[in-house]
Amino acid sequence: MRSVAGLRRRHFIRIPLQKILTERTTRMSRPSLTVYLSGEIHTDWREQIQKGVAEAGLPVELLAPITEHEASDDCGVDILGEEPNAFWKDHKGAMVNAIRTRTLIQRSDVVVVRFGDKYKQWNAAFDAGYASGIGKPVITLHDPAINHPLKEVDAAALAVAETPEQVVRILAYVIDGTL
Amino acid sequence: MRSVAGLRRRHFIRIPLQKILTERTTRMSRPSLTVYLSGEIHTDWREQIQKGVAEAGLPVELLAPITEHEASDDCGVDILGEEPNAFWKDHKGAMVNAIRTRTLIQRSDVVVVRFGDKYKQWNAAFDAGYASGIGKPVITLHDPAINHPLKEVDAAALAVAETPEQVVRILAYVIDGTL
Amino acid sequence: MRSVAGLRRRHFIRIPLQKILTERTTRMSRPSLTVYLSGEIHTDWREQIQKGVAEAGLPVELLAPITEHEASDDCGVDILGEEPNAFWKDHKGAMVNAIRTRTLIQRSDVVVVRFGDKYKQWNAAFDAGYASGIGKPVITLHDPAINHPLKEVDAAALAVAETPEQVVRILAYVIDGTL
Amino acid sequence: MRSVAGLRRRHFIRIPLQKILTERTTRMSRPSLTVYLSGEIHTDWREQIQKGVAEAGLPVELLAPITEHEASDDCGVDILGEEPNAFWKDHKGAMVNAIRTRTLIQRSDVVVVRFGDKYKQWNAAFDAGYASGIGKPVITLHDPAINHPLKEVDAAALAVAETPEQVVRILAYVIDGTL
Amino acid sequence: MRSVAGLRRRHFIRIPLQKILTERTTRMSRPSLTVYLSGEIHTDWREQIQKGVAEAGLPVELLAPITEHEASDDCGVDILGEEPNAFWKDHKGAMVNAIRTRTLIQRSDVVVVRFGDKYKQWNAAFDAGYASGIGKPVITLHDPAINHPLKEVDAAALAVAETPEQVVRILAYVIDGTL
Amino acid sequence: MRSVAGLRRRHFIRIPLQKILTERTTRMSRPSLTVYLSGEIHTDWREQIQKGVAEAGLPVELLAPITEHEASDDCGVDILGEEPNAFWKDHKGAMVNAIRTRTLIQRSDVVVVRFGDKYKQWNAAFDAGYASGIGKPVITLHDPAINHPLKEVDAAALAVAETPEQVVRILAYVIDGTL
Amino acid sequence: MRSVAGLRRRHFIRIPLQKILTERTTRMSRPSLTVYLSGEIHTDWREQIQKGVAEAGLPVELLAPITEHEASDDCGVDILGEEPNAFWKDHKGAMVNAIRTRTLIQRSDVVVVRFGDKYKQWNAAFDAGYASGIGKPVITLHDPAINHPLKEVDAAALAVAETPEQVVRILAYVIDGTL
Amino acid sequence: MRSVAGLRRRHFIRIPLQKILTERTTRMSRPSLTVYLSGEIHTDWREQIQKGVAEAGLPVELLAPITEHEASDDCGVDILGEEPNAFWKDHKGAMVNAIRTRTLIQRSDVVVVRFGDKYKQWNAAFDAGYASGIGKPVITLHDPAINHPLKEVDAAALAVAETPEQVVRILAYVIDGTL
Repeated sequence: MRSVAGLRRRHFIRIPLQKILTERTTRMSRPSLTVYLSGEIHTDWREQIQKGVAEAGLPVELLAPITEHEASDDCGVDILGEEPNAFWKDHKGAMVNAIRTRTLIQRSDVVVVRFGDKYKQWNAAFDAGYASGIGKPVITLHDPAINHPLKEVDAAALAVAETPEQVVRILAYVIDGTL
Repeated sequence: MRSVAGLRRRHFIRIPLQKILTERTTRMSRPSLTVYLSGEIHTDWREQIQKGVAEAGLPVELLAPITEHEASDDCGVDILGEEPNAFWKDHKGAMVNAIRTRTLIQRSDVVVVRFGDKYKQWNAAFDAGYASGIGKPVITLHDPAINHPLKEVDAAALAVAETPEQVVRILAYVIDGTL
Repeated sequence: MRSVAGLRRRHFIRIPLQKILTERTTRMSRPSLTVYLSGEIHTDWREQIQKGVAEAGLPVELLAPITEHEASDDCGVDILGEEPNAFWKDHKGAMVNAIRTRTLIQRSDVVVVRFGDKYKQWNAAFDAGYASGIGKPVITLHDPAINHPLKEVDAAALAVAETPEQVVRILAYVIDGTL
Repeated sequence: MRSVAGLRRRHFIRIPLQKILTERTTRMSRPSLTVYLSGEIHTDWREQIQKGVAEAGLPVELLAPITEHEASDDCGVDILGEEPNAFWKDHKGAMVNAIRTRTLIQRSDVVVVRFGDKYKQWNAAFDAGYASGIGKPVITLHDPAINHPLKEVDAAALAVAETPEQVVRILAYVIDGTL
Repeated sequence: MRSVAGLRRRHFIRIPLQKILTERTTRMSRPSLTVYLSGEIHTDWREQIQKGVAEAGLPVELLAPITEHEASDDCGVDILGEEPNAFWKDHKGAMVNAIRTRTLIQRSDVVVVRFGDKYKQWNAAFDAGYASGIGKPVITLHDPAINHPLKEVDAAALAVAETPEQVVRILAYVIDGTL
Repeated sequence: MRSVAGLRRRHFIRIPLQKILTERTTRMSRPSLTVYLSGEIHTDWREQIQKGVAEAGLPVELLAPITEHEASDDCGVDILGEEPNAFWKDHKGAMVNAIRTRTLIQRSDVVVVRFGDKYKQWNAAFDAGYASGIGKPVITLHDPAINHPLKEVDAAALAVAETPEQVVRILAYVIDGTL
Repeated sequence: MRSVAGLRRRHFIRIPLQKILTERTTRMSRPSLTVYLSGEIHTDWREQIQKGVAEAGLPVELLAPITEHEASDDCGVDILGEEPNAFWKDHKGAMVNAIRTRTLIQRSDVVVVRFGDKYKQWNAAFDAGYASGIGKPVITLHDPAINHPLKEVDAAALAVAETPEQVVRILAYVIDGTL
Repeated sequence: MRSVAGLRRRHFIRIPLQKILTERTTRMSRPSLTVYLSGEIHTDWREQIQKGVAEAGLPVELLAPITEHEASDDCGVDILGEEPNAFWKDHKGAMVNAIRTRTLIQRSDVVVVRFGDKYKQWNAAFDAGYASGIGKPVITLHDPAINHPLKEVDAAALAVAETPEQVVRILAYVIDGTL
């Protein structure tokens, strides 16, 4: 049996008191949020949200899919063996990526789904549907120019944003009530 | 409008009571399936599946979204009042359509999602995600030419078909084991 | 063991063929809906929806709470024994009524919640919250004059109607796509 | 809108009164059961259960996977296209079969899992685990000679039977209380 | 009150087709209920509820555990083989009975749990807990003399009745609003 | 009673490591609770509970909606863009607020819902319904003068309190068993 | 906005390395368990388990209901106001206690239910049923003399223990594999 | 027994506080994973994964069943009392082991299931089915020589690996996107 005897000789750990008081015993809590950032990987919208969240000092954990395009495409065959058939190469890769995306969407409080102006982005719409199916609040982020084809996705969202700054402001409001 | 006009002249069919009792008590059952047909509305793929299912005499109930494009776009404002803003017009309509689509997807055993060669079809990908999120088996139906952008959606499917005939054959196999 | 021997002597039952063909084997199905009508009990909005549904020939099953005010208030003490304390009288009655309301909301596909211009109607708002919590599509029905205090409830609805006719039209659209 | 006007001219359908009384209004109900028969496909155990159920007149609906070995192996490539790689041939077929097996296990009240004396039968153990995971009562059916390697599976079962007759007797007892 | 007393003499009833259409399309529906009767097996309380439900013509399906004491105790060993050890005899039997009880509780809309004045009746309290755990409305039925030891069970109930007649009246009220 | 008043001046507390080990390994645990405070925003009831919890040294995390009325009304349009139509202004705001309220209610162990003597407070009743729908214990807090219109909401609560002090006492009892 | 600026000036916290390595990054983890101890309150069985767990150095968090009989009986009326009627006194108290018991059972990994030789202990059987209903592993703890009346409860348990020492040994085995 | 002997001599590591704050507030998070390793106990595949995870510095918590064969077989009778009948000995042991396996599978983000070249390993296939039933991503690990009999299990997996190194690489990719 693994003994913890050794540890008992050490007497204390030091924990910042402010943290304890803030979070557990004396005040209306400031909630932290875990936020999954799904969708477009060719612009820096995730970094903008990340920067905005950091500057605002928000207690937000940002999660994301693997956003390096090549790694994301190759992971299946690179790890599990080559496939001569492009369909199965894609399939292997997409399933390995699904281990990450489904786990992290399930772990999130809020799912932000970004649609850019290029590519089909069916995976983004799929994520929005999956998040809705398991009851996660969805925020969509896209240019108004594509409002019409995204109407069914937007109809499942609690907010439809146009800029990363708006997403940061939503998170700040949701956490602190600040406008 | 789907007419069953010819049939109305016949009043009844006669089912041997023995068969009804048998169906419940003495044989391995032939399962019926409720199948939702999501996605593309500009080709006749649903009618092909419908015809194939009817010709094969399969006990399949086919469900679908409202596929008349104009009605689908206008339902919100037509029923609930005009909106000067296109976004809210779309929003109202998409939410009314969601009453149908979510209810029917939840009621289905299998969800078939069709992607055509036109339009964004984010609603189709959303439906596939939603169906996955609530645990429904998904069959995708699309041309191999779009395999790559659909890889994440296909990765959530139990079958990837190219033709409506294949979908009918899958249903026939699932129900009767016939190839 | 209960024998069904007697039944076997009868050879057939007669079922209208239209019903069988319509519902199970050869056509895109016309879905039926079970709809719970929650809220206001002092006007005839339920009867209007009922009449509209009947006139349109819609396959809709309408469910409702017990709408007779006195019976609803007295059921607890009338059945389970008097209470000198008004709180427990109310409590007993409300819990008996909850057997009906929760069962029927769970059984429904869609929940319509009506707010009138009188009384607190907290039970209606509670039903809307309960329906949302278990994932049922909600339609609210109320005068625009009370839009502001109902904004959180409306935010959980897929449609916000002003008249019973609009609710009937939504049901007709959801079932048949007709406008 | 589909009119039901024609039907109104016909006045009655005839329903055996005994059935109505038995099932809905006046007696303690005799429950029917939907039972999925998973596992071994090389002996006639399903037919024995089927025969036993029929002879006992039990209101049992028996469901099963596709038990024709060749069809079950080939369904994927036969319907969806050949695969040069045996793994993907198996994969395609197994996923098509999963549409049936998962749908029917979810639809069942009780899952019987049969282990024979040949082959690996990992699919049977998988079905037992899947049924447990979604909360279905499991009955295992196997020779005592393999009790030890099946101990974890048996530990998730509500009954461990050795013969199809015992399974039929369990169903008879569960439905009617007869021994 | 709709009597069914005289109907057994006729083999068929004739239902005006109008009524069937009406039931689905034009009226506020009268809900049917499936009710599980758990607990005491030594008095005729189930028969009293059954009689009351029949006399009131209520659309109630009554379900129950196997109430024959000896069969219930012996079913495990009688079907699956003798056990020299009383514990395993009980265990085998209790698990076979659980196939019925859990399936039927899950199938019910309402669970009535009766506590008599004899025996431990831990199975009744277990059923009440199980029903609560899966979200079924519970009605308890017992003498006020045992209110105190049953307070935790009663706290999970929506109604606490003293007589079978009260249970019937609750069902009548829940279905028809009649007092 | 453990006071926290003077502690803020110290940067760290020193926790005997023994205590940490003990908390996990050797004693009956003192449970912490996460409590959501829904409802009235015009009186200081939340602060009273907060103060009471702090004075009692209870390990309670208090969560709440954004209680600043103006921010709560304006958040939608302030962040996501103006709306000329009051309904859509309200809608946008209510949906942004829903990101917070639904997330925090889901994260809570207990939901306290306060009804004051002003305004419609349909959002409070909605929250109570939503909390019930997802299985959270509810405590209502209101003046007995409004017992009657709140009877359906109270019927879904495990405690009906009149004062914030009572809520604190309930939390103290639930955590420590102290009266 | 609450600043955390002050904290940044402090550079390090000190965490025992063993804990980090053990739990998260390099070894097969030793799982901790949260265990709810339901049932009998008149003997010291909880203290025996607590002592055994501490002596074995097991990472077990023990949770329990309020075990002080008088407080448990009086909490409702003491906090929420007197009741002249004993039933409502009990009811108020039992519902306040339910806030604790249901929350803690939901939070637990394993539920131990103890039956002594006195009293009705229906609350213990109810807890066992509730735990089963929400899918928690149950261990029962009782004298073999009451095996027969507890057979349905034992049938839902993964272990039937006779002594607190056996429960401790089960926990030690489940955590470390030690016998 | 896994020793961390070398590490115990060091008392603390020092973590820059900035990093902790950063982890929560300013960067895209590196997700940690809890991974259950089910199946074969006669080779060192778990240690290989453990070593690979440690060398790669991955934030992975590895969980496993009790892998000491003798303890796993004897735990039931050793703790809870001898059984003359081998079936009940196995049963007791398998149910005690189930307390661990089901708890840990539910706690995991990913379940790896290993099939070796010996024994029946039905428990491994059962775990894969159970994990699928509750929605956990599954990775199978086995020699291609047994692809065919494992096709149904592989069809429920998001990755089919041949070596422990591949599993480690999948985890590294899922966490960090590294190939």
